[in-house]
Amino acid sequence: MKRKVEETPIEVAGFRFGASACGIKPSRRSDCGIIVAEAPAAAAAVFTRNRFAAAPVVVGRERVAGGRLQAVVVNSGNANACTGRRGVADANETRRLAGAELGVPRDLVVPLSTGVIGVPLPMGRLARGIRAAAHDATGGGLWRFARAIQTTDAFSKVSVETLRFGGREVTVAGIAKGAGMIAPDMATLLVFVLTDAALSPAHARQLARAVAGGSFNELSVDGDTSTNDSLYVLASGAAGNALPRGASALAPLVRSAERVGDQLARMVAIDGEGATKAVSIEVRGATSTTAARRVAETVSRSLLVKTAFHGADPNWGRIACATGYSGVAFEPSDVSIWIDDVQVFRRGAGVRGAAARARRRMMREEFRVRIKLGSGAGKARMITSDLSPAYVRFNSAYTT
Amino acid sequence: MKRKVEETPIEVAGFRFGASACGIKPSRRSDCGIIVAEAPAAAAAVFTRNRFAAAPVVVGRERVAGGRLQAVVVNSGNANACTGRRGVADANETRRLAGAELGVPRDLVVPLSTGVIGVPLPMGRLARGIRAAAHDATGGGLWRFARAIQTTDAFSKVSVETLRFGGREVTVAGIAKGAGMIAPDMATLLVFVLTDAALSPAHARQLARAVAGGSFNELSVDGDTSTNDSLYVLASGAAGNALPRGASALAPLVRSAERVGDQLARMVAIDGEGATKAVSIEVRGATSTTAARRVAETVSRSLLVKTAFHGADPNWGRIACATGYSGVAFEPSDVSIWIDDVQVFRRGAGVRGAAARARRRMMREEFRVRIKLGSGAGKARMITSDLSPAYVRFNSAYTT
Repeated sequence: MKRKVEETPIEVAGFRFGASACGIKPSRRSDCGIIVAEAPAAAAAVFTRNRFAAAPVVVGRERVAGGRLQAVVVNSGNANACTGRRGVADANETRRLAGAELGVPRDLVVPLSTGVIGVPLPMGRLARGIRAAAHDATGGGLWRFARAIQTTDAFSKVSVETLRFGGREVTVAGIAKGAGMIAPDMATLLVFVLTDAALSPAHARQLARAVAGGSFNELSVDGDTSTNDSLYVLASGAAGNALPRGASALAPLVRSAERVGDQLARMVAIDGEGATKAVSIEVRGATSTTAARRVAETVSRSLLVKTAFHGADPNWGRIACATGYSGVAFEPSDVSIWIDDVQVFRRGAGVRGAAARARRRMMREEFRVRIKLGSGAGKARMITSDLSPAYVRFNSAYTT
Repeated sequence: MKRKVEETPIEVAGFRFGASACGIKPSRRSDCGIIVAEAPAAAAAVFTRNRFAAAPVVVGRERVAGGRLQAVVVNSGNANACTGRRGVADANETRRLAGAELGVPRDLVVPLSTGVIGVPLPMGRLARGIRAAAHDATGGGLWRFARAIQTTDAFSKVSVETLRFGGREVTVAGIAKGAGMIAPDMATLLVFVLTDAALSPAHARQLARAVAGGSFNELSVDGDTSTNDSLYVLASGAAGNALPRGASALAPLVRSAERVGDQLARMVAIDGEGATKAVSIEVRGATSTTAARRVAETVSRSLLVKTAFHGADPNWGRIACATGYSGVAFEPSDVSIWIDDVQVFRRGAGVRGAAARARRRMMREEFRVRIKLGSGAGKARMITSDLSPAYVRFNSAYTT
């Protein structure tokens, strides 16, 4: 989906951003981005559970374990995934190059990659890109960084909040890249949550878990993650607040990070390749949360449901059918379905005369499908998109 | 996929077939089909596991329990699914009408329906259709019956074998309807296996289980079945063979029915809506059969994999990625992938120079993807199709 984004300048104290175009993407668009902190930042990360974790994930997992990072180097256009031992060597060389250019210890640098799987990183180009991006790194470059990490994204995804925290005004900024069918075929999702708050590494881990477990979790089917998915939290401490003591002191910052994450997740959903709608699938009345999640996942990955969304077709039969094959137990005569506020299915049978109103709701860019199973208190939500001919054309012709 | 089918006349002794157009389908194509046996036939069936089992499934399950059936009535264009109590009453009325027209006890008649979900059966039209189809019922009408049960099928699916059995020549004929994305969005699958062999109801059950557990099981993801999926086996006994005694005596007939089922399943796969290729996903070296099946399912339902098939893009990265998020444990460096005979991925990394040859294999109408995990002896196979823009256009515009 095309979306006009107004690029209000965003600063996060203690961080600088750089970007360059080094020719990894054939399009000559920018494809190398750097975030560098003035001093080692408290850091944490959550990574893909894909068994084919890419080389930068393997390397990043080791580096972030220390709880401190000072720089992040991202290349787009090449995922450095399924590249064997050479891929790991290249990811480590990327750290070394960026560390040298930025004057930062290489052990405090993490590499990230997104793009084509299975092709070795063109290290000569990347070296030039790192040099140019490091040279370019300024406080105001956040949007340029956001563009440099995009692959098939139609627009840059940035969200920011300020809040009073530990006696100071602090900033929480989120930058994401990702645009795909989400479930079950998620494109690589890279998420950076940056704050100038002073935090311990343990606090950073709490923030990372909260953001990953919120809306991003509802975007993807459990475990259906790309080879490169990574979410990093970096806290520079430049705001000079008092370190939070106890969970309640940290809570306002966690909530802020969750809201930033939620905004980014919605942007990713609506930027699904060829997608024209973001649809929230809400299930309640299941025997458990797991059962509710399973129904929400099954409906949100159904091709027949997603194509009906595209055509604004209030075909609740497809929704009921997917609910029925989810493997979850329920009484058919207890089930009801709504499109936004329009009930289309009541206790196991269609509601006459609801189609025209439901269709109008489905013409919107965002709408909800609510499924009530009537067999318990379990509930869950998934965010999905419609499936358009453009998606298929795009993915038949383009090697991701 | 368009396919030219040569309609060689097929007879199965003891059965007659009828068809008519009664206006349930808006297209005026035939939409009511009848199979009637000269005498009660040994019968068995396997049904959908969808929780929203359609009314004809509910009614058919009761009727076939007795082990004898004499007639089958199928309407296309309306699934009589999610139609509540009225749906069950309509399915029973269908039995009564057909029984009266055919002079057969209504308890030996089963109704089947396929088409739009959630709309009550137009019983006036169906009554006229049943009358006309019953009047029409002749020995040679098998192909006309096959056409009458189609919905989005591009061609009729019929397969037949003759074999020596119990001292006589017997015929095994299969008729199927079904065309969809198979997994995970199977269109309704109706399958009839008819034989003139003399069998007990217990033998018929063995045949039904064998056919359902074979290729049809590999077409669908476990449990991802439509509201109406039904597979019936009817044995007229007109061949006059001796009743088989023991499993080994029945075995040749079981194998014949399995081959007929396999032919039908391949026809259904290649008739996927908008599909242009039937692709077999073969997994071996998994820790268990279940694990192998899970990998095969995950790969065969991946949109990115299916769109790559459509574009004949030997993008093994998408296959590896789906394998990686299947939730199955393996060592990435032990994994190899082939497209037919071309190895594209060897022990965790791409094979250089294989792309052009793999692409040529993928231009074919049928090819295999073989995935070797190297962690055990578990193996499994799924049959899937490619995903084309035509599929999405079709399913956005058409209410199934």
